[in-house]
Amino acid sequence: MNSAPVAVFDSGVGGLTVVSALRRELPGEDIIYLGDTARVPYGGKSRSTIERYSEEIARMLVGEGAKIVVVACNTASALALPRLREVLDVAVEGVIAPGVQAALEATRSGHVAVIGTKATVGSGAYENALRDARPGIRVTSMACPLLVPLIEEGMLADAITDAVLERYLGPLGECDADTLVLGCTHYPLLAPAIARRVAAGIALVDSAANCARAVAGRLDRSGLRAPAGRAGSLRLGFTDPPDRFLGVAGRALGLDTSDAAVWRVPPLGQ
Amino acid sequence: MNSAPVAVFDSGVGGLTVVSALRRELPGEDIIYLGDTARVPYGGKSRSTIERYSEEIARMLVGEGAKIVVVACNTASALALPRLREVLDVAVEGVIAPGVQAALEATRSGHVAVIGTKATVGSGAYENALRDARPGIRVTSMACPLLVPLIEEGMLADAITDAVLERYLGPLGECDADTLVLGCTHYPLLAPAIARRVAAGIALVDSAANCARAVAGRLDRSGLRAPAGRAGSLRLGFTDPPDRFLGVAGRALGLDTSDAAVWRVPPLGQ
Repeated sequence: MNSAPVAVFDSGVGGLTVVSALRRELPGEDIIYLGDTARVPYGGKSRSTIERYSEEIARMLVGEGAKIVVVACNTASALALPRLREVLDVAVEGVIAPGVQAALEATRSGHVAVIGTKATVGSGAYENALRDARPGIRVTSMACPLLVPLIEEGMLADAITDAVLERYLGPLGECDADTLVLGCTHYPLLAPAIARRVAAGIALVDSAANCARAVAGRLDRSGLRAPAGRAGSLRLGFTDPPDRFLGVAGRALGLDTSDAAVWRVPPLGQ
Repeated sequence: MNSAPVAVFDSGVGGLTVVSALRRELPGEDIIYLGDTARVPYGGKSRSTIERYSEEIARMLVGEGAKIVVVACNTASALALPRLREVLDVAVEGVIAPGVQAALEATRSGHVAVIGTKATVGSGAYENALRDARPGIRVTSMACPLLVPLIEEGMLADAITDAVLERYLGPLGECDADTLVLGCTHYPLLAPAIARRVAAGIALVDSAANCARAVAGRLDRSGLRAPAGRAGSLRLGFTDPPDRFLGVAGRALGLDTSDAAVWRVPPLGQ
């Protein structure tokens, strides 16, 4: 047993969907969250930059005593997970493998669609993981770079967002994909709009709940669960001053931050 | 006379519009450009983060021997110019004052509209500078956070972009503003779409040409012009690996980069 914190990071606030799932799955664990809002978004940047940012953020979390680092960002999971597992001395869990697992459980047609940032889709991480797990599977991937800005503008139910979704998801109607992976931690906020756009039988898959279960499994296997019966705390930090983000977290992500402490993160690179 | 380079920076590639204007205005000057593509965009971030990034980038440029630093980014000009002028030992020129000058020359109704990023509009920099220069002027400012992502997607002539412009600029039709300041170095790329949207009599003002004239004036006043008759060089650097940006620069911004050298910028914060 080990009461060190579970650490979670994302390029911004989207990863708080994973924090919500972790608090439900592991109510006894202390959680610290670091959103790299000073450098958000990661999704259009190069592998070398995403690796460097992810390593810097993960090392800050290990410096805070984390017993496991959860990469609650699809872009960083797609591009930086091997690097983080190489350089860190604690376990690292990402969101790609849990999303792949959920997609494999959901699909009946054997054709899975994946949407994500340019960097995530360009990396081929979902396609490779899906094909490694089930060699005959068909995968259709689409980069949707405008969705994050629309979500950050709060345009969750808006004719412009619907037109953008039509542009991105229209081609899906012409194939037999029956499962759509929301391959970006922002996208669950658009799930209602996406569900209206796609055919009724398509299952929407996000990795937050599966990621939380994967983290629980890792802690159990390595004997690192917090002692039973304790109530876990939540501490939230952001690399850009946090004031504006805490409200977004509460409102948009349905995360109860009333008991959260604010972690004043020192400026990066200093 | 001084043949040290004129240095220009922006959060990304938009500032290359200023480089184009500088090459026309000052063909004898060597120009170095640094796009902070590893941390783009600045427009949604806080003053303290924008100041820190701007100072770090400007110091790199001074380290390259720059005789003047041109802040070709409205957000950085709006929020970080005082800080840069305080800490740097070379002249610093931004894009706000030149844009204000152009707007004052263009308006007849005395009502100027300004569009920009959230940070630029939130700073009040244009409003304050316009009112300082002409106390009775009326100013209507609008943050347009979706325009940069749309431009970066190349959606310059697109029904979705038109719908977004309609949302942002619709209210302009109900007032007597006769001048619209494009308060972001990306926006000139949308000038045709914006011109289609606004009333025929409205003048669109961007600061690139005025900024280049202001730089020329500063160099003349301080005797820092390059010797006559020489042909200036161009060197382009980006904090995220540059390969993807050089094509954008050439295609979208009409900048001839055929004679440009690539500056391999070391990773930030190391």
